[in-house]
Amino acid sequence: MKTIGEFGEDHLIAALCRDLPSSDQVVVGPGDDCAVVGTGDLLSLLKTDAVVEGIHFLKDEAPNRVGWKAIARVLSDFAAMGGRPNELLITLALSPEVTVTWANELYQGMTRCLKKHGGVIVGGETTSLPKGSPAMISIAGRGSVKRSQVVTRSGGQPGDSIYVTGALGGSIQGKHLDFTPRIEEANWLTQHFAIHAMMDLSDGLAKDLPRLVKMSQCGFRLDQKSLPLSVGVSIEQALNDGEDYELLFTTSDDIEGPWETTFPNVPLTKIGELTREKSDQLEGGWDHFDRGE
Amino acid sequence: MKTIGEFGEDHLIAALCRDLPSSDQVVVGPGDDCAVVGTGDLLSLLKTDAVVEGIHFLKDEAPNRVGWKAIARVLSDFAAMGGRPNELLITLALSPEVTVTWANELYQGMTRCLKKHGGVIVGGETTSLPKGSPAMISIAGRGSVKRSQVVTRSGGQPGDSIYVTGALGGSIQGKHLDFTPRIEEANWLTQHFAIHAMMDLSDGLAKDLPRLVKMSQCGFRLDQKSLPLSVGVSIEQALNDGEDYELLFTTSDDIEGPWETTFPNVPLTKIGELTREKSDQLEGGWDHFDRGE
Repeated sequence: MKTIGEFGEDHLIAALCRDLPSSDQVVVGPGDDCAVVGTGDLLSLLKTDAVVEGIHFLKDEAPNRVGWKAIARVLSDFAAMGGRPNELLITLALSPEVTVTWANELYQGMTRCLKKHGGVIVGGETTSLPKGSPAMISIAGRGSVKRSQVVTRSGGQPGDSIYVTGALGGSIQGKHLDFTPRIEEANWLTQHFAIHAMMDLSDGLAKDLPRLVKMSQCGFRLDQKSLPLSVGVSIEQALNDGEDYELLFTTSDDIEGPWETTFPNVPLTKIGELTREKSDQLEGGWDHFDRGE
Repeated sequence: MKTIGEFGEDHLIAALCRDLPSSDQVVVGPGDDCAVVGTGDLLSLLKTDAVVEGIHFLKDEAPNRVGWKAIARVLSDFAAMGGRPNELLITLALSPEVTVTWANELYQGMTRCLKKHGGVIVGGETTSLPKGSPAMISIAGRGSVKRSQVVTRSGGQPGDSIYVTGALGGSIQGKHLDFTPRIEEANWLTQHFAIHAMMDLSDGLAKDLPRLVKMSQCGFRLDQKSLPLSVGVSIEQALNDGEDYELLFTTSDDIEGPWETTFPNVPLTKIGELTREKSDQLEGGWDHFDRGE
């Protein structure tokens, strides 16, 4: 019998979600940055996301920063749908030797992020793990989005320009712990322009862009030389490092002038275009390209 | 520095939730079976709950039954607030040697429970744990409840009768894996009667009743001889075993006749009364009584 280690995460999720029943209230189901549910003009966004010690943060990392990251990742997903955070539930799965001080500082980091970007903690639970287990912090949240401003990964159209915010690569130097979820930027974009497809970059452009393109049933042309590089990183790193938590989106609107006026401190870069022809290679050749399958 | 193992779960949650900011949309915050949020007549219930291998189920348990349990626990919490399930998000934290078949059967158990009781899966994620880690399945869900039918743990009034559904104790024999969340019963109760306080019994009456009583700022008188015992269990077991997933509620209405007509196959038992005087012992003396603090 195949193990999930051999099978891979994307395959597993696809297999598990294949025949799930749906309901009238589900506007967007599994496979996007968040689920979108509800009726009427104001919809709910639902998301769950976990950070695990040794994978998303190191054991000796300041818990205040870990708390910020755990929350900001979920807020970044709300942003990617064009929405804002409302309420969060916190699951702490910790081994019994973790100190109360650590847990308190973790919560301080979470509330620091929520005070800055919106949203409140309304509950959760703690679960005891066996001694020596890595800490796991799972955040479930509800956000909200106007029906008219919902953006999915699947609405991209041939001819759309592909944009990213900020700079890519090198997040491990520190940004992955204190990044700003692009809530204001995403809300401004979806309010003023026809944003056809959007997601947040968590696994690196080389994995995430093909996911968006595939769901939009397009191809793409990427101009690697145009990529906005973080200081000191290579193009390869910008493509593959991951944890950028920037917005990746497509539109045919002319947004660059208004963007620069509104967000003069946040770079916006056109990095390519969606095409009619299905393509699965980056322009210029990128043999080891992971298509996120 | 104190560890969370020394501090205890209830203390930790109380400490972490002490100074959390709230918002206009939060009707019921941390500390009840679910959070209640929203505006208008139909409110959302938010809940997260995890089951862990070795604590909530054994390693060699059929995954189909584990899936049922994981979902039914959350549905039981929705019921305890007077609500119904809508959408669920599934977080699987598994070690890589778990088989795909196991994960598939787990999902079959989850969907079996949802088909029977309502609610759909709209997303989630898988997280890889180090080899040999116990499996953890965390469920986050949104339910809904009419504002007029919300019941909390804190509305109990002196003189109320205290009721439990079903039978108590011995859940470890199998019920903990295939229990029926009391959604229909709770909805019928809250629609037709003034149910002052309600919760679901997960940690055993001896822990859970004092929690409800404390939040209602009452005392209680419990008639231990009246407890509805599962076959073959003692009063002590009925008080302490836990995982009953039955409703515990208080009311001054006369509900026994209508209940028997509506749910002839589900026992309903008056087990005591709320009192004005604060009490922290069970009638008849129960020295080792854990007040859930």
